[in-house]
Amino acid sequence: MNDFQATPEAFTTMLSQMIPLAGQMGIEATELRPGHAAATIPIEGNGNHLGTMYAGALFTVAEVLGGALALSSFDVTKVYPVVKDLKITFRRPAKGAVTASASITDEQITELAAEAEANGKAQFILSAEVVDEAGELVATTEGTYQIRSHGS
Amino acid sequence: MNDFQATPEAFTTMLSQMIPLAGQMGIEATELRPGHAAATIPIEGNGNHLGTMYAGALFTVAEVLGGALALSSFDVTKVYPVVKDLKITFRRPAKGAVTASASITDEQITELAAEAEANGKAQFILSAEVVDEAGELVATTEGTYQIRSHGS
Repeated sequence: MNDFQATPEAFTTMLSQMIPLAGQMGIEATELRPGHAAATIPIEGNGNHLGTMYAGALFTVAEVLGGALALSSFDVTKVYPVVKDLKITFRRPAKGAVTASASITDEQITELAAEAEANGKAQFILSAEVVDEAGELVATTEGTYQIRSHGS
Repeated sequence: MNDFQATPEAFTTMLSQMIPLAGQMGIEATELRPGHAAATIPIEGNGNHLGTMYAGALFTVAEVLGGALALSSFDVTKVYPVVKDLKITFRRPAKGAVTASASITDEQITELAAEAEANGKAQFILSAEVVDEAGELVATTEGTYQIRSHGS
């Protein structure tokens, strides 16, 4: 849909350029295709005095999925993503690396692209799950994102 | 109420030891007393490709207020703070340093301390405002925190 090669590796590189803080945290995309994105973050450098991952690191690995999904699902020569709000609920402490993942449907992609084309923007809710290395749920997020037309 | 000298400077030092990531972001407490806390974060190192502060940095400067307030308001030899969830709503882009602040009332402090003493934990909602250098609101947060008795 666009010239950007939406591979996990390309997104990881782009992320560290666009949001240096996320790069410093060691966030890496692991899956990226239209409608689906996943990213990991190591515990090293992102922990607290209790040896568990800091809340802001869990927030970040989930939040960047909105941008990743926008890049892999929409024509980024036409639209760019904006986060409006995000709620994170902490389920249990994460003692090691975690992986966040989120998806939107093909129907959503089609409808959102059409709405942004018609109205200059389109809004969607993105729910992400953050799991530890054992697959246990450590946090969930629900964010409101928009795609907006360039110049709108 | 406790041996920890709850000054902004002491909290800033403690924060960078307990949550190195927050220290690296340059977060500094600016006000700290029972029932009230404020902290700032510079734009340097915390921006994105648009020259505005990254969402995860805004999250962090607001989130740490829960811990700051717990330290200044409760007897930390008896209780410690835990964040359960936090919603951040982005109002406008922040192009420079921002300051987050939050308060709880004296009545809340008394009631929460008594409840934690009786039940091992007590829960409260903390609302924070994040403003830029001109005093314009850039984000608001609403978090659910608990204080829990050590060993409970």
